[in-house]
Amino acid sequence: MYYVGVDIGGTTIKAGIVDSSGAILAKSAIITEKIAPEKQMEKVGEQILKLLQSSNLSFDDVLGIGVGCPGAINGKRGIVGYSSNLKWTDFHLKETLERVTGKSVRVANDADAATLGEVIFGVAKDYNTVIMLTLGTGVGGGIVIDKKLYEGTNGMVGELGHITLRANGLPCGCGRKGCFEQYASATALIRITKEAMLKNKNSALWQAVDNDLEKVDGKTAFALAKQGDKTAIKVVDKYVSYLSEGCLDYCNIFRPDAIVFGGGISKEGKYLTDKVVDYLEKYEYGYRGTPKTAILTATLKNDAGIIGAASLVAEEF
Amino acid sequence: MYYVGVDIGGTTIKAGIVDSSGAILAKSAIITEKIAPEKQMEKVGEQILKLLQSSNLSFDDVLGIGVGCPGAINGKRGIVGYSSNLKWTDFHLKETLERVTGKSVRVANDADAATLGEVIFGVAKDYNTVIMLTLGTGVGGGIVIDKKLYEGTNGMVGELGHITLRANGLPCGCGRKGCFEQYASATALIRITKEAMLKNKNSALWQAVDNDLEKVDGKTAFALAKQGDKTAIKVVDKYVSYLSEGCLDYCNIFRPDAIVFGGGISKEGKYLTDKVVDYLEKYEYGYRGTPKTAILTATLKNDAGIIGAASLVAEEF
Repeated sequence: MYYVGVDIGGTTIKAGIVDSSGAILAKSAIITEKIAPEKQMEKVGEQILKLLQSSNLSFDDVLGIGVGCPGAINGKRGIVGYSSNLKWTDFHLKETLERVTGKSVRVANDADAATLGEVIFGVAKDYNTVIMLTLGTGVGGGIVIDKKLYEGTNGMVGELGHITLRANGLPCGCGRKGCFEQYASATALIRITKEAMLKNKNSALWQAVDNDLEKVDGKTAFALAKQGDKTAIKVVDKYVSYLSEGCLDYCNIFRPDAIVFGGGISKEGKYLTDKVVDYLEKYEYGYRGTPKTAILTATLKNDAGIIGAASLVAEEF
Repeated sequence: MYYVGVDIGGTTIKAGIVDSSGAILAKSAIITEKIAPEKQMEKVGEQILKLLQSSNLSFDDVLGIGVGCPGAINGKRGIVGYSSNLKWTDFHLKETLERVTGKSVRVANDADAATLGEVIFGVAKDYNTVIMLTLGTGVGGGIVIDKKLYEGTNGMVGELGHITLRANGLPCGCGRKGCFEQYASATALIRITKEAMLKNKNSALWQAVDNDLEKVDGKTAFALAKQGDKTAIKVVDKYVSYLSEGCLDYCNIFRPDAIVFGGGISKEGKYLTDKVVDYLEKYEYGYRGTPKTAILTATLKNDAGIIGAASLVAEEF
């Protein structure tokens, strides 16, 4: 039996047939059109059917369809409350796609689905309770408890970038000030890098970006820190301290078995996770014998969307 | 059938027979002695037996025994990892008390047990996913998800006072800086009150404490704010903003159905919860239609320990 994973994005909708080991048999991408979501779901139904046919399978071989979708999702009811990327409001996705395909459908926020994917098929396979932090333009995440996605009563949970790191700190898009996202996202790292460069005109960071501040990205400071540039090392240390403070919060709340980093910054891999582990060991809540939390890097990468969505079905079997 | 609840404290051990509605049929308190915990459990066994006899019951009428205990508890294994109040280390409480009584025993941190008590027998009866914050000397708490206590894989979870509110802020006993507890505990409120008094020598707060700064307690600022003293109003507003920022963090992580305040400060009741609700409505993460979180005051009060411990058994039936 197989799972179908559907990863809905603002520009494309990716779908894949996934086997019980998490491997993708076939996948495709269609354009996200500016049409009614009901019409879009009909096209997704066709997309899935074609994939099945190309693999010599039918809907009878499918246990269910998982869908990851950006925005505010009520997973228990299968409703997209609001998605600013898709401009969908109160769309009964589960009900619609079940009618189109005749299969059971489970919907989750895309970051939540990616978290579950890492626990069921990815780097956190050997862990039960896992927090994932996606370090990209913002900081997103998901919570898995005892191998089950935490969905809350009415969804919209796990806005893990929107906890305070600094009361009355930098304004955040969410309306609050000083959110974790403002200090631990790739956007934040770029800002911190630029600020440090402006104060240190002799740093090798300048040569690395051809003296063009606009060329600074999330990799710049890490690359130069590895080469020993003092300013870059300070930038990375500052970023790591912010990221680790947020991780400490999640350790003290959940004592998760693992925290998984995803998103662009996670590509720094062990170089980053080793530094975070050092910080946590120094500051984790001072109980004797506090259970250790593994700090891991997400492994599903480009297919995380499809495999994460498929894991929504796998979790239930 | 009945539940037994045992509330272990540093000075006394309270036990009670609790019926299925959460009412206490009989209760007693014995001294917490400086003896081996195994010996102490034998005395608890006798204490329970006497209570049963006084109610014309036997162990056959008991579904199980719940125990709330301060410190770092591994609930799944029933072990007290470390309790600074009791000076117990790696004590297999569940195993020992089961041998003494012949009944099944479940152990939890006392704040966790109190949280479950409010969900099963107290103010949060109509809610499934609930965060409790105890606002006392420190800030403690517990997490209940879908009517089940969140215990993590290895326990020691729910240190809800130890999330950062202000990175590099006031030093905290846990080793970190700027923890929520440093801004939202009764201790913090007293500090904020004193600081404001020193800056405002004409405030009516001075008369309220007979010009003795040492007489300031957690009620002082609230009492004077209600009487219209401007300095006291500012103190309360500041305290409410800190407390609410922590609540917002927990809303954005869990979207709980309710947050329950316990501990000394919670006695301000609706005067406090109304102010927190106002703050949350202004700043809760800006999704359209974000599910509302009820802000409640704990109701079990003095018997919270016994009833909370009993609820550990009730949860399983």
